[in-house]
Order: sequence, then structure tokens, then C-alpha cells
Amino acid sequence: MAVYTDIGAEAMARIIAAFDVGALVSAKGIAEGVSNSNWLIETEGKDSGPSRFILTMYESRVDVDDLPFFLGLLDHLAARGCPVPRTIHDRENRAFRTYGGKALALIEFLPGVSVSEPTPGQARAVGAALASIHLAAGFPASRANGMDLAAWRRLLGDCGEDGLAAIHPELGRIVTAELALLSARWPAGLPRGVIHADLFPDNVLMRGEDVAGLIDFYFACNDLLAYDVAVTHAAWCFSGDGARFDPALSRALLGGYENVRPLADAERRELPVLARGAAMRFIATRAYDWLHTPSDALVTPKDPMAFARRLAFYADPANAGLFELR
Amino acid sequence: MAVYTDIGAEAMARIIAAFDVGALVSAKGIAEGVSNSNWLIETEGKDSGPSRFILTMYESRVDVDDLPFFLGLLDHLAARGCPVPRTIHDRENRAFRTYGGKALALIEFLPGVSVSEPTPGQARAVGAALASIHLAAGFPASRANGMDLAAWRRLLGDCGEDGLAAIHPELGRIVTAELALLSARWPAGLPRGVIHADLFPDNVLMRGEDVAGLIDFYFACNDLLAYDVAVTHAAWCFSGDGARFDPALSRALLGGYENVRPLADAERRELPVLARGAAMRFIATRAYDWLHTPSDALVTPKDPMAFARRLAFYADPANAGLFELR
Repeated sequence: MAVYTDIGAEAMARIIAAFDVGALVSAKGIAEGVSNSNWLIETEGKDSGPSRFILTMYESRVDVDDLPFFLGLLDHLAARGCPVPRTIHDRENRAFRTYGGKALALIEFLPGVSVSEPTPGQARAVGAALASIHLAAGFPASRANGMDLAAWRRLLGDCGEDGLAAIHPELGRIVTAELALLSARWPAGLPRGVIHADLFPDNVLMRGEDVAGLIDFYFACNDLLAYDVAVTHAAWCFSGDGARFDPALSRALLGGYENVRPLADAERRELPVLARGAAMRFIATRAYDWLHTPSDALVTPKDPMAFARRLAFYADPANAGLFELR
Repeated sequence: MAVYTDIGAEAMARIIAAFDVGALVSAKGIAEGVSNSNWLIETEGKDSGPSRFILTMYESRVDVDDLPFFLGLLDHLAARGCPVPRTIHDRENRAFRTYGGKALALIEFLPGVSVSEPTPGQARAVGAALASIHLAAGFPASRANGMDLAAWRRLLGDCGEDGLAAIHPELGRIVTAELALLSARWPAGLPRGVIHADLFPDNVLMRGEDVAGLIDFYFACNDLLAYDVAVTHAAWCFSGDGARFDPALSRALLGGYENVRPLADAERRELPVLARGAAMRFIATRAYDWLHTPSDALVTPKDPMAFARRLAFYADPANAGLFELR
């Protein structure tokens, strides 16, 4: 949570003048984004267009070669009525510019808050919004999922047995068995498309029980649509530490999704294994970050065991009926 | 630059509901303030009142006992037409509340940017705005200047000879001589009142060449009005490193001030020594912070020598005519 690059008011005014959005009025660095710098920008506005924007500077973790995919996707989805912010193109119709060697994008500001204790009504709305992006077919670009099963294996391998044991004595055994099971059982042939792949409450702006915007598409990629449902389920239906599952949130999320895009039988059948995969995906990145974040870093790494608990829940035969027909 | 306290959306909505400003729509932690947490808040608004605010949580450096002075001063100045944000009182008419043991205030948001390369037109507007707060007499509370000559002596004493020598070989000799001179020559009997005492470009929001707001009154106190002019002069009329004085900015700042509040002859006569004091005030705090900021801290301490250069400029007999009648 930081602003990594200092941009003076005069330089900021010149940056904003490259877009046809009216003159800069206010720029506040905001404490969001782990690896990007973000400013909340206000301009004098132009015609009936928006006057508030998020300016994002991509500091390191986002590959500039992926920006046309991420930024073009926002435009594609917004044009199809999905609740996502639009990318503002500059006067030369470029989706991003560079400043001091770094890429910069201006994105529509959508007012809303990220909830930390979702209600069933909010989970229902998020399910519907997720389905709406799954139905917005036809985006011409594609991007492989950089966080697939092979990546989980690689990240967990880098942690080493001792590293995993330092997190929890059982963690190494759990992930070894689970990686084997997921490799054997990972489904093929399910409907594919562009997925968000990281739809945590942090990445949803709510106004009351309505979704104002889905944001932060920097893990978006082409993969199984039902895997996105599984990730969103793992992200929304548990207490943060993974210790408590909330069946009302689960029913609401899945119900909201299916009101817009009913799951195929094959997708429903595979959701338990996809959910185990979703849990593994966050065990893998969190375990890696847990062991590789310097002790004096600005960010506190998140507990991998919060997703080991979700994995145990999804793997428990007592919960086998979780994704069955309502 | 940070948000020190995490407040979830639900808790934030409850905090904002204590004020009669409409329901919370958006809250973004902003990367401003060295020792406070700040959020840019948007609400649904209420009647014709504002719908955007800065919520400040006082983390440590501000004494809660001083808050009635700081926050009441904003209301006093705003009511007299000075360009400062108003304090929003809660439904029980309190100027601040507490949350998790910390004080919280909701302050009107004023759109504008803090310039880093002021123009003469901007310096003129800032001079006029400073004069307007000096003329807004009648604020009933008072607060001693905690950053007076005695405080400079104490801070520099805490640095020690070795500490000052580590910053610059000449610094100890310079400050010892200067403290003696300032003690002997510090004026009495000049007009007093409430001063801002820290009016750097960071603390002024500009829209073009107009002052949208003076902010961050957390050093405000009762002291010599001309000392505030001297502080503002040191803050605005030099390059950041103190190496270049800009006579056009100086003329514009003083001219803008005197258009609103002409300086008395005695004030003008004392401005050279007050300016040396202003330079010493920032040498003292910067030298102290330079030596006492942990190397792994989030903030980079500012160079004390930038104000030693200003001090040398003000002390140079060649510049004796700086504050003479225009």
C-alpha cells in the first residue's frame, strides 16, 4: 500500500493534458495496490464525460506487454454493460502512456467501497456480475493463465520442504498430496473464456447491495469459467482466516451467478475439484510470499493457512454436496 | 506517507453515519500526512452540503488537547471568508470523535493541487491568502508556539556536536552563532495573532493561480504575524535545496500579502531577523529528524542544509534590502 513514484503537480498536469478530459484539478496518491502507484484524479471534466479517474503507474509486477490485454478487456466489458471501469484513451487513442520509463493508464473512477463482511445480498450481486463478464464473449485477445497448476507446483517447489514446514508442520504433506490429486483430476473440456481469476472483496466496489464495479483485472486470462466461480467462492464464502464457511453466502453467490449464467452439469460436477484448485492457488502464492517477503517490507504477507483451511473444507467428503443442484 | 490504521468499509460507514452528511459511497486511504492517516471520503451528500471530505485519524504527533484549537480555527477562518476547509461537526456537534482510542475529524475536501514549482502569480495569491488569515481576528482560543527559539535550541542541543558535524562540518558552528544572535535580536512588540507557521507549498491547494485552500494547520499558534510571513517566504521563494533564491517569487509573495495587509514599518524592519529565525526553525527540526529517523523508516528525512543555505542567504549583508519598501 503505497505510492512508489512522486509526480509533482506540474508534471501531473502535463500527463493529464495528454487526455481529452479537461484540466487537472486534484491528484491524491491513494494507498491501494501492492505493486502499482495509484492516484485519484479530478479534472474540470469535458462535455458530459467523467471528471474523476484512477491513474495507475505500473511499477514492476505487471508486464507492460500484457497491458493491451488488461486495458482492452475493460473497454470490451464496459461496452457490453458489465460493471467495470473504462480505460480512458489519450488524444492519440493510446490505452497507456509512459512516464519516466514506466507505463501509465487513466481509468474511469467508480465510486463504491470494498466490503470486508459481505452480506448474502452482496454475494448474490457479485455472482451475477461475475456471470456477466463470463457471458461477454468475443474479446479478440487472449492471455494464458500464469497462475495455473504448473505455476502452483513451481512456487511451492521454490518454498522447499523446510520452508513449508516452517509455515506449518503438515503443509508440505498436504500440498504434495493435493498437487498429485489435482494433476490427475483437473478437468478438461469445460467452457472457457476470459476470467477475472482474483475476484476477492477487495476487487469489487459495492454501493449498498449493488456492484458498482469489478476492478483490478491484472490476473485476468483465458481459462475455465467454472474455475473463476471456484476462486470467487473461496474468496467470498469464508471468514478471512478460512475457519468459518458461510452457507448463506455460498448459496447467494452461486444463485446470483446462475440467474445470469446457469452452470452446465459438467461444470457443477467439477466445481469441488476446481475449488480445491482455487484454494491451492492462494496457498501457493501466499506460501511463496510468506517465505520471500523481507521482514522490513511495507506489506505484511498473508497467512497461507487461511487457504489450507479452505482446502480442507472443500476436500472434506461431508461437504461433497456443496455445489449440487439447489 | 501512509495509512496507519485499517478501517473496514462497514466500520467506515458507521463512522460517517455519525455525521449528517449522507451515506458513505467511497473511502480511499490517501498517501498524505507524515503522522496521520487520511481518507478521501465521498458520501451521497445531504441537501446542498458538500459530499466530499477528508477524514483524518490523529495517530501520534498531534496532541488531542490541541484539536479544539486546530479544528475550531478552521471554522473561525472559513466563516470569515478565508480559503480554508471547514470542520464537519458530528450529529452531537462535536468537532472530533474517537475510534479505537484515536481521534478522528471530518474536514471539508477542497479540490486543488500542491504545486512544486510555484509561479509568481501563485506566490502572490498565497501572500494574499496568508494576509487574510492574519486579518481574521477574534478567535477566542490561543496556543503557544511549540516551535519557538527555545525549542530550536533544545532540538539542536539534542543533536549534539557530533551529530551536527555528521550532517555538515560547519553546521555546529553556524547554529551556535545564530542561536546567540537570534536570542539577542529577536523582536518583541510586533503585531501578534494566530499564525499558520508551516505554510509550505505542500500545505496550499491551488487551482491555476487561485488559492483553493490553506490546509494542515497542525503547527498553528499565537505568535508574531511577521514571523509567519518570514516562514512563508523561506518556504516559497527558493529552490527546494535552498541554492537558488527567486526574486520574482519574493516580490510577488510580499506584494500579494501587502495588498491585503500592509506591513507596519517595524515589521518590515525586523523581517531579516525573522527570516533567519524561520530558516533556523527548519534547520532545527530537519537536523533532529535527520539524526533520529530510523534507517528503515518509511519517510526519508529532509536535508537540513537546504535551510542552512537559506539562512546564509538571509544573513548575507548583500541581501539586506530584500524586505525594504517596494
